[in-house]
Amino acid sequence: MRPLPEPARESLALAPVLHALGDPVRLELVRRAWARPGSTCSALADGLDVPLSTLSNHWRILREAGLISMAVDGRNRRVRPRAGDLGDRFPGLLEPILRLGAAETQDDGPS
Amino acid sequence: MRPLPEPARESLALAPVLHALGDPVRLELVRRAWARPGSTCSALADGLDVPLSTLSNHWRILREAGLISMAVDGRNRRVRPRAGDLGDRFPGLLEPILRLGAAETQDDGPS
Repeated sequence: MRPLPEPARESLALAPVLHALGDPVRLELVRRAWARPGSTCSALADGLDVPLSTLSNHWRILREAGLISMAVDGRNRRVRPRAGDLGDRFPGLLEPILRLGAAETQDDGPS
Repeated sequence: MRPLPEPARESLALAPVLHALGDPVRLELVRRAWARPGSTCSALADGLDVPLSTLSNHWRILREAGLISMAVDGRNRRVRPRAGDLGDRFPGLLEPILRLGAAETQDDGPS
């Protein structure tokens, strides 16, 4: 697997991380990536009604903000949450966001 | 004082809140607004090297995301954090962000 470039842990900054999470599709991708580490991009995006080019842009923003690692695996790209780096750099940040994101997704679900 | 329009508490959504916080200037404005409720926009922006039109846009984004209330008070605009609404809607979200934002600001300070 060939890893794609990503920022070093010590250069992660809070505002880009929040910006990356500040979009409903990216927030959902992050929730899925955390729930299923090592999945492919396409598996994680399953069922989202978003054009491929937009998705690819979302993944890039998440990678450049330091939320995920991405590696080329043959014809696939595999995604790993940078949970350790983010927990070290921003302790206590992600847990409430993932929890609240999950709650909101359920609110939006079929009624 | 004449209040400016803002979203109702029950219509606050997580992604716009994170988006609003996902900019270093807006994050700093929010930190200041939380520390000094009822201050004027100009007092809160003191010392930030940002054009007035950009600041005005930042305040609008914060207001429309539901982070702050704003009211016209003569020639000033006064800012109040919507701490209660945000705490009700997104419990546990803001504390780590404000804490980590403060820590990062100190890192960036004069060395």
